Amino acid sequence: MNIIDIIVKKKNKQNLTEEEIKYVVNNFVSGEIKDYQMSSLLMAITINGMTDEETIYLTKYMLESGSMLDLSMLSNVVDKHSTGGVGDKTTLVISPIVASLGCKVAKMSGRSLGITGGTIDKLESIPGFNANLSKEEFIDELNKIGMAITSQTDNIAVADKKIYALRDVTGTTESIPLIASSIMSKKIASGSKKLVLDIKVGEGALIKNIDDARHLANLMIKIGKVYNMEVICVLTNMNLPLGNNIGNSVEVLEVINILYYGIDNNLTRLCIELASLMVSLGLNISFEEAKAKVIEVIRNKAAYNKLLEFIKYQKGDITRLPKSSKIYEIKSDKSGYLVNLSSLELAKLSGELGSSRKNKEDAIDYSAGIIINKNINDKINAGDTILTLYTNKDSIPNINISKLFTINSIPNNNYTLIYEIIKG
Amino acid sequence: MNIIDIIVKKKNKQNLTEEEIKYVVNNFVSGEIKDYQMSSLLMAITINGMTDEETIYLTKYMLESGSMLDLSMLSNVVDKHSTGGVGDKTTLVISPIVASLGCKVAKMSGRSLGITGGTIDKLESIPGFNANLSKEEFIDELNKIGMAITSQTDNIAVADKKIYALRDVTGTTESIPLIASSIMSKKIASGSKKLVLDIKVGEGALIKNIDDARHLANLMIKIGKVYNMEVICVLTNMNLPLGNNIGNSVEVLEVINILYYGIDNNLTRLCIELASLMVSLGLNISFEEAKAKVIEVIRNKAAYNKLLEFIKYQKGDITRLPKSSKIYEIKSDKSGYLVNLSSLELAKLSGELGSSRKNKEDAIDYSAGIIINKNINDKINAGDTILTLYTNKDSIPNINISKLFTINSIPNNNYTLIYEIIKG
Repeated sequence: MNIIDIIVKKKNKQNLTEEEIKYVVNNFVSGEIKDYQMSSLLMAITINGMTDEETIYLTKYMLESGSMLDLSMLSNVVDKHSTGGVGDKTTLVISPIVASLGCKVAKMSGRSLGITGGTIDKLESIPGFNANLSKEEFIDELNKIGMAITSQTDNIAVADKKIYALRDVTGTTESIPLIASSIMSKKIASGSKKLVLDIKVGEGALIKNIDDARHLANLMIKIGKVYNMEVICVLTNMNLPLGNNIGNSVEVLEVINILYYGIDNNLTRLCIELASLMVSLGLNISFEEAKAKVIEVIRNKAAYNKLLEFIKYQKGDITRLPKSSKIYEIKSDKSGYLVNLSSLELAKLSGELGSSRKNKEDAIDYSAGIIINKNINDKINAGDTILTLYTNKDSIPNINISKLFTINSIPNNNYTLIYEIIKG
Repeated sequence: MNIIDIIVKKKNKQNLTEEEIKYVVNNFVSGEIKDYQMSSLLMAITINGMTDEETIYLTKYMLESGSMLDLSMLSNVVDKHSTGGVGDKTTLVISPIVASLGCKVAKMSGRSLGITGGTIDKLESIPGFNANLSKEEFIDELNKIGMAITSQTDNIAVADKKIYALRDVTGTTESIPLIASSIMSKKIASGSKKLVLDIKVGEGALIKNIDDARHLANLMIKIGKVYNMEVICVLTNMNLPLGNNIGNSVEVLEVINILYYGIDNNLTRLCIELASLMVSLGLNISFEEAKAKVIEVIRNKAAYNKLLEFIKYQKGDITRLPKSSKIYEIKSDKSGYLVNLSSLELAKLSGELGSSRKNKEDAIDYSAGIIINKNINDKINAGDTILTLYTNKDSIPNINISKLFTINSIPNNNYTLIYEIIKG
């Protein structure tokens, strides 16, 4: 068996055998297969696809390339994953809600790369926060307070880590079998048997249309079944940013505001839906019952208190969130309704202000970011501030306002937050 | 402009602009674009193709990545290139024929990689042979004896050298636009304005079918026109090995035998056709007139003497060709007609005996190789020796005779040596 024959096979639209997929994963991890060979194969897969069977084998060997966490000693464990989007801080809102209702939320999260923010970066913007827990500390925290978030450990799905880093720099991120195997190998290795998957669809997401999202959902449900994992997929709109804040410390601030004040925006509404699905899975109760409980723990601040308890447990000091030295306001030059915000352009702008990495080695400015001062369909007068930019850089990039947001004479009533829910 | 956007564009079957192609070539040569990114783009090109316009731009910037040889001070310069096959020693047979007729044959050749032999390796199997000529030595030899063969200089089509090495190990060799731009960038840079291209078609070649070969031929003719280069393409059969010897020093021996004895086999017949086309181009005479001259210089040994003059000029000592220490005979286990020889399997076997490289750094055993003792459609008795293997290894690989050759009760009269000739 050799890698060139395997690459040529996939180039010629042939299916790979279990043995060939095993050979690829194991020899890429060992370094026998070079990055330039793997990226060639990944592009052939991205263009020519993989069958469900091939994807299940790929997931299996990626999973087996690392160690697995055994959480069977814990009850009511439930996990949640998002395919990533702009301003997506749902993990930070949902986890305390669900944990405050008696479920165990054991999250291994990643750092940002490209336009997608990372939960770990957001948490690390809190001074003192420890996101590097040992396995023992992680399980101990789950037992004591019901939730714990740590950075993905080095020995979970080792192959995925290596493949993901390569996909990010070789134009091979937008492949449904590669996305499915990447997510599922990590999630299965993380030990939970119940999973809610938030699949983002739209301009600011990896998945651009509903058909691809459905395909991905059904594939992940199918993979889950092989490992006795109950998976619910929620297809959600990622054409608009989630919530009003984009960045790191500014997103932590928004989470606190939501759980303290119960602010009603698209982020809050999405979090209530996702948290209700998780609670319904975790406690084996109906969705309606779960949703009533979720709304109650936001109202009575049990979720807010859980968030503070969690941050304190992991040594974060929420009173010392970093602030940027420079603030710029972007105003509207015309009157009308705010009918669109470009999540992609806002994410790029936030990155240029310092909030994300271009390369894996880059440092992040935790205080950099954007606050969106208006909501969709708000009435705008010329001169109103639409965006506030936070940065420590001496200058801001040239801004083309018309790319960032759109003001129109009539409001846009076409916004759907949740497209559909797919269960196994 | 950035490489990931360009990769994604080609992944999505979009055409690249001249500026994008220039960016890719220049930044890959400078090292800004990494091997793993280039191989991902090369796979996207291999699967999704390139327009003729894109291929012409790719050739242009590959060509401009290095220096160009100016041969305009020489008259009757004519070049020849083969897309590579098993046992292909046509350059060594043809060059002395054409040079002995007053044309100038200025060849820059490559080393072997994979199953395809390299002219330079064959020449270097002659003790003392100097295949590293300076530009001045090269032009001096052309002036004095009418032919010169040197290894491709480092500064000719620099981008091609780097891209070719990567294609060879990433399953992206079989792409018509990549083959066309690779060959034409080198040939244009080598300075000749007249070129005969031998496009091999079949199992043992890069191009597997006639339609692809036609496409490649027309594309190379089109690129040639942009640079005022007259190009003739000959589509030839590469299902059978060319001639009877495969390896390095054994191939040199076959060349000597052909030019000395005028042996009539498929190799000789192909060489006469190609040489006649070159002479007709180089001297501006009819094909028939050229062919009569070619046959005459083989008969009167002018071509043989030119070969010896050339080898001596480049310091080779033909009396000391290396011989292998071990010889194995492969006999037929049945009687009938020899109806097929697998060029691919014979090439692999020859490589295992030591005649070729698996990796660029590998050393070659110049004496290793195979002599095919019978010709196609010869009558065979069980026990006849079909192949003789030469090696210095202590053991030979397990051999599956039925993969190497086929004996049948009736002869095979379906062999066509030259499929067609395409002129611009």
